[in-house]
Parts: sequence; structure tokens; C-alpha cells
Amino acid sequence: MLLMGESINGTRKQVAEAIQARDAEFIKTLATDQVEAGASVLDVNGGVAGGDEIADMTWLIETVMGVTDMQLMVDSASAEVLEMGVQLIIDKGGKVPFINSISGEQARIDAALPLVEKYKTPVIALCLSEDGIPPTAQDRFDVAKQLHDLCTGVGLPAEDVWVDPLVLSVSADGQAAAITMETLKMVKAQLPVRTTGGLSNVSFGLPNRPLLNRTFVAMCAGLGIDGAVLDVRNKQMMATIKAIEALRGEDNFCGGYLVAHRAGILE
Amino acid sequence: MLLMGESINGTRKQVAEAIQARDAEFIKTLATDQVEAGASVLDVNGGVAGGDEIADMTWLIETVMGVTDMQLMVDSASAEVLEMGVQLIIDKGGKVPFINSISGEQARIDAALPLVEKYKTPVIALCLSEDGIPPTAQDRFDVAKQLHDLCTGVGLPAEDVWVDPLVLSVSADGQAAAITMETLKMVKAQLPVRTTGGLSNVSFGLPNRPLLNRTFVAMCAGLGIDGAVLDVRNKQMMATIKAIEALRGEDNFCGGYLVAHRAGILE
Repeated sequence: MLLMGESINGTRKQVAEAIQARDAEFIKTLATDQVEAGASVLDVNGGVAGGDEIADMTWLIETVMGVTDMQLMVDSASAEVLEMGVQLIIDKGGKVPFINSISGEQARIDAALPLVEKYKTPVIALCLSEDGIPPTAQDRFDVAKQLHDLCTGVGLPAEDVWVDPLVLSVSADGQAAAITMETLKMVKAQLPVRTTGGLSNVSFGLPNRPLLNRTFVAMCAGLGIDGAVLDVRNKQMMATIKAIEALRGEDNFCGGYLVAHRAGILE
Repeated sequence: MLLMGESINGTRKQVAEAIQARDAEFIKTLATDQVEAGASVLDVNGGVAGGDEIADMTWLIETVMGVTDMQLMVDSASAEVLEMGVQLIIDKGGKVPFINSISGEQARIDAALPLVEKYKTPVIALCLSEDGIPPTAQDRFDVAKQLHDLCTGVGLPAEDVWVDPLVLSVSADGQAAAITMETLKMVKAQLPVRTTGGLSNVSFGLPNRPLLNRTFVAMCAGLGIDGAVLDVRNKQMMATIKAIEALRGEDNFCGGYLVAHRAGILE
């Protein structure tokens, strides 16, 4: 399972403060902690309210690249920031980053597709249309199909399209997670893309969110989800991920699971 | 999700001792604890080594029925014990019990199928053939299909055939759980039966078995498993089950989840 570390995100208070104060140590620690915890991709979002996103993203990328060569994921709503970030990473000799994200909204397609074509970046493809998150699995699948067609149409290998079926809170709609899982099932069965998701919205508004989050990750893992965007520093979540990898046969002789056990990482 | 409580089992030391000593209080507590924890079916296995299984099973059933009217599951390798148990439960006014189990082995078919035909008992159908547990999902599916055909052929509704895809330990074979999940997927997609399993073998030989067990239950739940044979008294497992039910949309307005939270049952 490809673990995408979500923690370097300017919409979070502590991270925003670190960006504003140019606290490089804070960001470097956030990067190395996630790498050590098992992230294989680091999301980088410089969207601080009232900030200069180009300057903030430039500083963030340079800071993170100063401490790890892990693959990054440039996360922005702005086409300009996305392109600047991708170009900067490549110029500095980094691995071609992910773009977070494209969706069925025309503005997102206009922002991201030219970059996908030019740089062949792997891309998060959100099952989101002009009208928001479609209420049915079929409609979400249709967006996934559209994004697969668009991205492969400009030369991106299908396996670099990472479809996120999206999830809403089950506290607002009891079928929210079921629709996400049905979308995932359809995408896995019918498209040669890969799948991922920021799954923690599922528990919004409910007590013991970590229990719901890790259980939902395991349920999606049973359906074959290929990656997840998450806080890899959460110990119980990572214990679940280690168990998932052992159970999916992705962990030779359960070696990773046993190492994690001996390291005291499994709760 | 239909929870089948596994704890009244004479192959376990404490239970065997209680059966031998005719310690009715112990067995009654085991029954009521499981009912209170959420079991909807109670497995009853009187197979104590060196015991008189007919006498032991008779006592067990009478003891359990003295304290709960929950549906039972008569669990024995003996055709005689199975029939005696089913008949006794019906004679005493109980709900027609499950039989545990039928399989692709001719001796099990000969033992269980006449009872399925006569009493229309729901039945656990193990994906096990004359040669043991088939190594491939296709071969296990073929057994499931055979048992579906046999049971429906004698008049049992397909939804009363509960296929158990079986699982071996991932410590012995890294693909063991993946094969089980692939079997489950095939059965769910192609047969109108229901599915269940005693899933805890998956973690045999590994540290932190509860973590692997509850993660595997969640993965199978993502694939749509309809029931599970488990120790409902395990708090962390039941917290996972409550999360699964909320996430599958089987828990109106997350009411069961919230009640469990307020009762301090979610870890």
C-alpha cells in the first residue's frame, strides 16, 4: 500500500505558523518523521490563509528537499503554484512529483491536465464533478472514467492516475462509506488506474474517530485500495497498515509486521 | 453483520472442564455474556476429548436454553450428535438451529445433508474438499458452488447456506488471507448464498493476534462478508464490529455506535 503522508499542510494551524515564521526545523522534522514512519510520498500544501502561496510553496519544497529525497506531492488549487512546484522539484533533481489534484470540475481540468501532459506527473483524480461530490457510485465512477480518459489521452500511463472515490461522513449520511466502497469496487473492476483516498472525513462528527478511520482503511484495503493519504505518525493507524500489508501478502514472510512488532510500533 | 459466538466449545480447556463438572453456572454465564455482547447465534460444541458427546451436547443445549432463547448452532463432527441436537432444540421450542458444518468431504455431506433436507437448518458450508483446503480461490469457489447446489437441491433457501471460505495462517503462507478474500469476492459475486468465517486462524503463529484478527474482519467486511464466528467478548474486536456496522450503513444514524461509545465499549 502506498502511504501518502498528509501532514505538511498549511491549512493546519501549527504548520501554517511554521510556514509564516519560516521555521525550517519544524517542517524538516515533519518530513523526516513521516519518512521514518513509512510514508512513500509526502504531500506538500502551502495554502496558508493570507499568505503568498508561490513564496510559501517554494520555501516548503526547498526545506523538505533539504532533508529527504522522498517523492513529493504538490498540493494546491492554483495552476500557477502547481506548475511552479513541479518545475522546482524537477530543477532541483527531485523525482517527478504527484499533483494533488485533478477532478471533473472544468477549472481543475484546465489547471492540472496541461501539467500532466507536459511533466507526466502521477495525479490524484478526485471523483468530484461541477456539481460537487456525486451522490451515487455510478456517477462517481463516471468521473473516474472521464479523468482516466483525459489523463491517458495526454500520454499518462493509467497506473499513474490515482482515483480518489471520496468519502463523506457517515454521521451525516449512513450510506456515505458504502457509496465510497461501491465506487472503489467499480473502479478496481473496470479501470486500469490505481486508487487512493483521504479517508478520515468518514468519521467527522463521531466519537473515537481513529477507530472508524482505521477500520475504514482496512475495509477499503479489503477491496484493494492501492494507497491512502493519511497521518502516518498515528501509531494505531500504522499498526493497522502493517496488519493490512501482512494480510494482503505484500509483506514477505510477515517481515515488516515482525519488525514493527519488535520495534513496539504495533499497539 | 451476523455475529456467531464461538465460545461454548468443548475443545477449549475451561469449557471442557465445565462440561465434565456439569458446571451449569459457567456455561450459562458464557451464554448470557455472549448474548449481551451482541451475538445473534451461539455455537454449541460438546466435543470434549474422552467425553460422551451425546450426553454432553444434551446437557449443554438444555443448559444454554435455560437461560436464553437465542438461536443456537449445533457444532459436531458426528451425524448422530447433529441430529440429536437439532431435534432436541426443536422439541424444546427453540428456533431451528444452524448446523456447523457441511463441507465438500463426502462424509460431511452424508452426515449433514439429510438434516438440512429434513429440518431446513441454516448451515455453515466449509470450502473444504476431500483433499483438504484447496490452495486456490477457484477450487474453493467450486466447493462453495457444489454445496450451494446440494443444499438448495434439497430445498434449503440459498440465503441459509453460509459459506465459510476458510483461512490459514499468513505466517505459514503469505498469500493465505489473499486467497480467502479472493474466494469471498467470487462467492459474493456469483452465488446467492451468505458468507461467514472463523477468521482468527489467519494470525496463528504471529504476535499481536487481536490486531491481525480485527483488521482481517474489517477487510472481509469491506468485501461484504455477512457474518463472522468470533469471540464477541473481545472488546477491541467488538469495537471494530461496531465501526464496521456504522461504516456499512447497517447502523441507523450510527445509533449502535453511539450507544457503544457511551457504554465505554469502544476502545
